[in-house]
Amino acid sequence: MYTIGVDLGGTNIAVGLCDENLKIVDKASVPTGADRDGELIVKDMAELAKKLIEKNGLTLSDIEYVGIATPGSTNVKKGIVEYANNLPFRDFHIADIFKKFLPVNKVLIANDANAAALAEALAGAAKGASTSVMITLGTGVGGGVIIDGKIFTGGINDSGTELGHIVIEKGGRQCSCGRRGCWETYSSATGLALTTKEKMKELELQEIPSLLFEEAEKEGKISARTAFNAMKRGDKYGAKIVDEYIEYLATGITDMINIFQPEVLSIGGGVCNEKEYLTKPLIELVNKEQYTRGNAVKTKIVIAELGNDAGIIGAAGLGK
Amino acid sequence: MYTIGVDLGGTNIAVGLCDENLKIVDKASVPTGADRDGELIVKDMAELAKKLIEKNGLTLSDIEYVGIATPGSTNVKKGIVEYANNLPFRDFHIADIFKKFLPVNKVLIANDANAAALAEALAGAAKGASTSVMITLGTGVGGGVIIDGKIFTGGINDSGTELGHIVIEKGGRQCSCGRRGCWETYSSATGLALTTKEKMKELELQEIPSLLFEEAEKEGKISARTAFNAMKRGDKYGAKIVDEYIEYLATGITDMINIFQPEVLSIGGGVCNEKEYLTKPLIELVNKEQYTRGNAVKTKIVIAELGNDAGIIGAAGLGK
Repeated sequence: MYTIGVDLGGTNIAVGLCDENLKIVDKASVPTGADRDGELIVKDMAELAKKLIEKNGLTLSDIEYVGIATPGSTNVKKGIVEYANNLPFRDFHIADIFKKFLPVNKVLIANDANAAALAEALAGAAKGASTSVMITLGTGVGGGVIIDGKIFTGGINDSGTELGHIVIEKGGRQCSCGRRGCWETYSSATGLALTTKEKMKELELQEIPSLLFEEAEKEGKISARTAFNAMKRGDKYGAKIVDEYIEYLATGITDMINIFQPEVLSIGGGVCNEKEYLTKPLIELVNKEQYTRGNAVKTKIVIAELGNDAGIIGAAGLGK
Repeated sequence: MYTIGVDLGGTNIAVGLCDENLKIVDKASVPTGADRDGELIVKDMAELAKKLIEKNGLTLSDIEYVGIATPGSTNVKKGIVEYANNLPFRDFHIADIFKKFLPVNKVLIANDANAAALAEALAGAAKGASTSVMITLGTGVGGGVIIDGKIFTGGINDSGTELGHIVIEKGGRQCSCGRRGCWETYSSATGLALTTKEKMKELELQEIPSLLFEEAEKEGKISARTAFNAMKRGDKYGAKIVDEYIEYLATGITDMINIFQPEVLSIGGGVCNEKEYLTKPLIELVNKEQYTRGNAVKTKIVIAELGNDAGIIGAAGLGK
């Protein structure tokens, strides 16, 4: 039997046909067209799935189930997206609507951060671990928690494990969720770019030269890469921004370890392209700060392995 | 069948005989004598249990198991206390040693904060909830998490759910765990007394009168009660301290809800004697801050019900 994983994003719909080991056999994608009616988006998802099935000489009876990884708050039991801020979904019965367009046995859904965490647990950086946490450093700080091999979505509703929305600096930066000082305002890629912008403004006012300006010009914008690039060329202001960024990141990750003591904590998102520049100082700080006493086995902190395929693989693995 | 719950504290050993509904049928206690050899402490626990069994006309065969709630880091699978800072336990095989003194079928152990959380879930404020969180405001901020009716102790070891040791004010107050700005440095009873002391020092330097001084004198010390008492008598400085305390408490509790979305979050510890003075403004703040969107069912925030019996009941419930 095969499964199909749909990774629904604000920009693209990616669909993958997966074998029993969650290897992607074939995949395809189309633009999401997020400003359309929700049903049309789901119709495109179903058509893409159908094409993949036919192209690979299969029929619907070869498909155990279809999994959908979607942004937003999900009710996984009912197959409903309750709310998504970048898609036209309000109490949207995505699973049932998908079945209308493609009558498969079963459609499972999950929040995209949770699906990515499951993917890493089933086939990626946390393979073999029964409890793991995945953090994604992107526009926000996404979080997914796997306990005893299953996604933990929260006790009373599926809105849990909003790990980016814990306050680590009371009264700090304004967060989109309404609170101040949430972890994601500092440790997301967006947060790093903002810190870089703030520091560059300071330097500019004081007419202090820095490679930060050259790097930003080269790239055409101030991004999460600017400070890392300047640092790698020896710029002390770039290094300072990176140090501060990693300190905030370590604070939140240590919190996660003190709460969950996962076997593996994996980190995904574009910032991870910095590899050891990120992980080496990060792991040192976390090891120093975490509560774990004495000889207790410690959480392995690693970079996530599945990259852009995590959504497809996690969705395809929802019934495993 | 009956079970026996042992609540081991730094000051007293309390032992309770419980029926199948976790009602305490009989209980007794002796001083811990925390500076003695660990084996002697366990011997006293066992003797107290034996006395209760005999006094109630029972024999060892009527006892399904003995549960022990102990401070410190526990390895619940092996029945070992790895470390406790107020007891002479280092990799201490407490379950096996107990059996040596009283040959019961089974001895189960748990960290005391976890046992209290289980007690509230089985027989107290969170009865009926499958996922719940308990916070205890005492010397520190203790935390226990129940997921699907079971204590969640952490993934890779049993050191998890150190909920008081998440940073909510980066670079803030020094915590005993080595970090700065941990939740417990602000929201424990100790933290509240410290804040009160700090503010009173300020007032003293500026020679500003306040009922805080009168309250502290009446009680003979500055405690977690001082600010609440002054506030209730109309003192604005007392009110300010209480407001700030509740703000920090709300910050951490909102973090817990954003992470776990428990059905019930119960709060224990002496500070809860302030009842609605504590819970009313607290719940208002948390409702405003939490991530839970729209119509999603929200966590019930309540004061824990079992008080000093929570340790015994949780220990007695470890096998349920």
